[in-house]
Amino acid sequence: MDDSDFKLKVAIVGMGLIGGSYAMALRPLNTEQVIGIDNDKNTLESALNMGIIDRGYERGGSFLKEIDLIIIALYPKDTVKFVKDNFKYLKSGAIITDTSGIKQCVVSEINSFLPERLEFVPGHPMAGNEFKGIAGASKDIFKDANYIITPTAKNTSRGINLIGKMARKIGCSNVTCISPERHDRVITFTSQLPHVIAVSLMNSQDQNEENIKSFTGGSFRDATRVAQINTSLWTELFTMNSDILVEEIEKFEESINLLKKAIISKDVDSIKNIFEKASSSRKELVKR
Amino acid sequence: MDDSDFKLKVAIVGMGLIGGSYAMALRPLNTEQVIGIDNDKNTLESALNMGIIDRGYERGGSFLKEIDLIIIALYPKDTVKFVKDNFKYLKSGAIITDTSGIKQCVVSEINSFLPERLEFVPGHPMAGNEFKGIAGASKDIFKDANYIITPTAKNTSRGINLIGKMARKIGCSNVTCISPERHDRVITFTSQLPHVIAVSLMNSQDQNEENIKSFTGGSFRDATRVAQINTSLWTELFTMNSDILVEEIEKFEESINLLKKAIISKDVDSIKNIFEKASSSRKELVKR
Repeated sequence: MDDSDFKLKVAIVGMGLIGGSYAMALRPLNTEQVIGIDNDKNTLESALNMGIIDRGYERGGSFLKEIDLIIIALYPKDTVKFVKDNFKYLKSGAIITDTSGIKQCVVSEINSFLPERLEFVPGHPMAGNEFKGIAGASKDIFKDANYIITPTAKNTSRGINLIGKMARKIGCSNVTCISPERHDRVITFTSQLPHVIAVSLMNSQDQNEENIKSFTGGSFRDATRVAQINTSLWTELFTMNSDILVEEIEKFEESINLLKKAIISKDVDSIKNIFEKASSSRKELVKR
Repeated sequence: MDDSDFKLKVAIVGMGLIGGSYAMALRPLNTEQVIGIDNDKNTLESALNMGIIDRGYERGGSFLKEIDLIIIALYPKDTVKFVKDNFKYLKSGAIITDTSGIKQCVVSEINSFLPERLEFVPGHPMAGNEFKGIAGASKDIFKDANYIITPTAKNTSRGINLIGKMARKIGCSNVTCISPERHDRVITFTSQLPHVIAVSLMNSQDQNEENIKSFTGGSFRDATRVAQINTSLWTELFTMNSDILVEEIEKFEESINLLKKAIISKDVDSIKNIFEKASSSRKELVKR
C-alpha cells in the first residue's frame, strides 16, 4: 500500500462546501470508497458527475454497515441528529468524526447516547471560504490549514490518530488536540468574532454613499470578505455559543474604545503604543 | 512613440514602499528618466542596485528644473513641506502629484502657497501592503487597484489627464475624480476604519491564551492583516483626520452593538436580517 493511499471506506454526510471539499481531497488518495450522503438530489448528481463520490444516498441506511469512517459535514444540530438516527447501522469499531465550528454541546450530546462499540472523534478543520454549497468546494481549502481535534476521555489513540492522519493527508499542515471547552473559547475569538466584525463593518456603510467600490483597497476587501456569510450556519453557531461570543465582542469593544479615546485626544504616544502591540502580535502570528 | 511608453522625466520623492513601487512600475514604461529622492542613503543605493532609478539624491535641489512630473510618496506633513521647500526649483508647467491617504489639509495647504505656473494634482493610489520600506515595494500593488484624483478649481484637464494616464499605465484599473472633502469621508470608512478594527481585534486577544496560531483560519488572518501597521504613518493619518474617524468608529460601534443585542436575546430573525444585509452589500462590492 502506497503511503499516500487511504484504504478505507468513507461516507461523507452533507456534500456542501466542506463535505464536497473532503470528497475532492480524499479521492486522489485512492480511498477505497467514497460515499456521499445529501438530501439534495442535484447535489448528489453534481458530486457523481464530478467523479468525487462513488455512490450517493439521500439519507443514511443499512448501507452504512460497510463504512470504516464517517465524516459529518452538517450544521451542529443536524450533526447530532444524524448520528442519533444512524449509529444503529454502523459496524463496531467504525469511527465517526464531524466538522462543527463549536464543540462542547455537540460532543456532550453525541457521547450521551453513542454506544461503547463506536467512537466519535470531534474534529474542526479551520478551512472554508465565503461561498456555499458544492459549487464552492475545493480540495485547496485544506492546504496548509489548521485542523483541531477535541478529544474526551472516551477517545482511543487509534481514533485520534486516524483523524490526525486524514487531516494531514488532505493537506492540513498543523493538527492540534485541545479540549472542547478550550476550543470553543479560542475559536470564538479567532473565528466567530472576525465574522461579527466583518458583518458589522459592512453594515456600517453610510447609506448616502451609494457606491464605495471605487474607493476600496485591500484593507477593506480583506476586512469584509466573510461578510458574505452563510446565514443559517452562522445564526446557529452564534446562538448556540452566545454567552462566550458576547464576552469576546465586549473585549473587542473595550479594545476599540481604547484606541478611539487616544484618537479623540490626539494622544500620539498612546496611539503608537497600541499600534506597536498589535504589530508585534500580528508578526508572531505569521512567523513559522 | 510606443503607446506603452511614458516619455517624461519623473522624480519620485520618498523611495519607501509606495515610492519604490512607483519606480518599479514606471521603469518598464521606458520613462525618459526616473530620479529617486530619499534622505536615506541605503535606500537610494538599493534603488540604484535594483535598477529602478537612474540617479538618486538625498534632498531636492536645482536638478529638479529638468523634471516634468514629480510624485511625492511621503507622509502628509512631509509632502507639504517638500513642496514648500522645493517648488522654487521647478520649471513652469511641471506637474506635482502626491500619494497621501488624506487630502483636504494637504490640498489646501499646498494650494495656499503654490504659484500659478505650477500645478498640484492630488492623487491617492488605493494600493499598499502590510510592509514598510523599499524592501516591500512591488509594481504589483497597483494591479487592478483603484486610483483616486481629488481635483480643485485650480486644476487643468492637462494635469488631471496626465495623472489619470499614469495611473492606468502603472496598472490601476479604475481612476475616479472626487472632491477632497468626499475623499476624506469615504476613505475614512474604507481604509482608516479597517485599520482601527484590525489593530483592535489583534489587541483584544486574551493574554492568557499564549498561542492562537494553531487555531486561526482565513477569517482571522484576513481580518488582522493590516494590524501589522506602519506606526508613524497611521498615527499621522489618524490624528490629522480624528474628527471624521471618530464619527466612523461610532457608526461601526452602533452596528456591532445591534448584532450583539440580537445575539444576547438569541433573536434568530434579527441576526438573519443583519447577515443578509451584509451579504448583499458585500456581493455588490465585488461585482464587476
